[in-house]
Amino acid sequence: MTETQALPPTTRTPATPATPEQFVSVQHFLNRQMQLLDDGRAADWAATFTEDGVFAQDTRPEGRRGRAVLAERMEHHVGVIAARGLTRRHWIGMLSVEQDEDGAEQGRVRARYYAIVVDTPADGEAGLHLSTVCDDVLVPAGESWLVAHRYIHHDNHRP
Amino acid sequence: MTETQALPPTTRTPATPATPEQFVSVQHFLNRQMQLLDDGRAADWAATFTEDGVFAQDTRPEGRRGRAVLAERMEHHVGVIAARGLTRRHWIGMLSVEQDEDGAEQGRVRARYYAIVVDTPADGEAGLHLSTVCDDVLVPAGESWLVAHRYIHHDNHRP
Amino acid sequence: MTETQALPPTTRTPATPATPEQFVSVQHFLNRQMQLLDDGRAADWAATFTEDGVFAQDTRPEGRRGRAVLAERMEHHVGVIAARGLTRRHWIGMLSVEQDEDGAEQGRVRARYYAIVVDTPADGEAGLHLSTVCDDVLVPAGESWLVAHRYIHHDNHRP
Repeated sequence: MTETQALPPTTRTPATPATPEQFVSVQHFLNRQMQLLDDGRAADWAATFTEDGVFAQDTRPEGRRGRAVLAERMEHHVGVIAARGLTRRHWIGMLSVEQDEDGAEQGRVRARYYAIVVDTPADGEAGLHLSTVCDDVLVPAGESWLVAHRYIHHDNHRP
Repeated sequence: MTETQALPPTTRTPATPATPEQFVSVQHFLNRQMQLLDDGRAADWAATFTEDGVFAQDTRPEGRRGRAVLAERMEHHVGVIAARGLTRRHWIGMLSVEQDEDGAEQGRVRARYYAIVVDTPADGEAGLHLSTVCDDVLVPAGESWLVAHRYIHHDNHRP
Repeated sequence: MTETQALPPTTRTPATPATPEQFVSVQHFLNRQMQLLDDGRAADWAATFTEDGVFAQDTRPEGRRGRAVLAERMEHHVGVIAARGLTRRHWIGMLSVEQDEDGAEQGRVRARYYAIVVDTPADGEAGLHLSTVCDDVLVPAGESWLVAHRYIHHDNHRP
C-alpha cells in the first residue's frame, strides 16, 4: 500500500469519485480530526486511526504504525510546539475523494488534500509555515471514518 | 451562553455531530456571510445575525449585541480597512458542526471553525494577518441560518 | 457574459442559491480541477472547460478562449513555475453557488470563490503569493461540471 501511495498522482489509474455523501462525511471527519490535533488531544487524535494505522511522510518514509506509537509521538510533538510558545493550526483544503479499487467492497476510500500549517506566537502575527499534500486511505467506522494509512508529501522536499 | 462558549473545547462534553445536510448548509451560509463582510456590505452582514445576536471576542469579551450595533461597528471597520488601502479577505476552514444540546428542539447547532485574514495592498503582495478560532451558535432560518452568538478566540491572545 | 461578471457583486441582483447537492459537487469538481493544475496536467486541466470555454482576468481582460489555447498557455505557465524551482498550490475557499438566471433551464450555475496561491521553493518555507476572487459560469456534464467562463479578480489590482 505504501508503494502505491508514494507514486505521483499522474501515474495512478483514474478512479471512481466518491459519492457526495462520502465526500461530505470525509470532509467533516478530517476537519474534526485536525481540531483534535491542534487542541493537543494526542490520544483522541490517535484514536481516529485504525488500531494498526500508519502515518508516513516523504521526509521519514519508514512511517509510524499503531495508535499507541502515534499518540506517544504526537504527545511529544505537541509539547515541543507549546514549549516554543506557538499556537499551531493545521488547515486542509482541496479535498478529493475516490473509491479505493482494492477495498471497494469494504467501503474503503482514498482522500487526497492539501495541508498547510499556520503558527502564531503570543502577541505576534500569524505565519504560514509549511505546505504539504496528503494521501489517505480511510475505512468506514459507523457514521464516520478511521485512517488506515496517511502519507504526507512535503512541498519543500524534492525526491 | 457566553460562559459555556468561552470554555476551551477539551472541557466541553462530547456532542452529536450535525447531519451531512446541516454541515453543508452551514458551510454555504458561512461562506456567503464572509463574502458580504469582505464586499463591505455591513448592513447585509449584520442581517445574518438574529435581531439580538452577539459578536464577542476574547480580546473584547463584553461583546456587541443587536443588528443595529453590529452594522454600525462593521461599517466603521470597513472604512478603516479601505482608508488603509487594503483589500481584506476572511477565510474560514476546518468547520465542524454539532447539535446544540440546549436548543436541539429548535434545530439549533454549534459550529466551530478556524478563520484567517488575508490582506492585500494595492499593487502589493497578499499577506496573512491573523489566525483565530470561532464558536458560533446558529439558529435555523428558512433554508439557511442566523448567528445567535459568535465568540472569536485570537491565536495571539493568551488568556 | 463578460460584462455581467465583471460587475462588482453588490450590483448583481440577488439570485437563488444552489441546492446542497450542487454546492457539494461544484466544490468537489473545483478541488479536483485545481489539483490537475498543480500536478502540471495542462491538457487534463483544459479539458475541464467547455470546448470554447473562456479564462479571463482583470489584469488581462480580453481573456483566452478554447481548450487548445488554454492548454498551450497553461503548459507554458507550468514550465515557468518549474524553472523557478517552485512547487505551486492553488487553494480555493469561501465558495458560494447560485442558479444562473440566464441558463437555469440547462442547469447552469454561477460559482464565486476566493483563491490564493502558495509557493514553496526547494528546502524553503511556504509563502503566500496572491489573493484573488473568481467568478465562474459552470455547465453540468454528467455527474460533474465544465467551466464555460472564468473571470479572476486580483486583490492587488485596483480598477
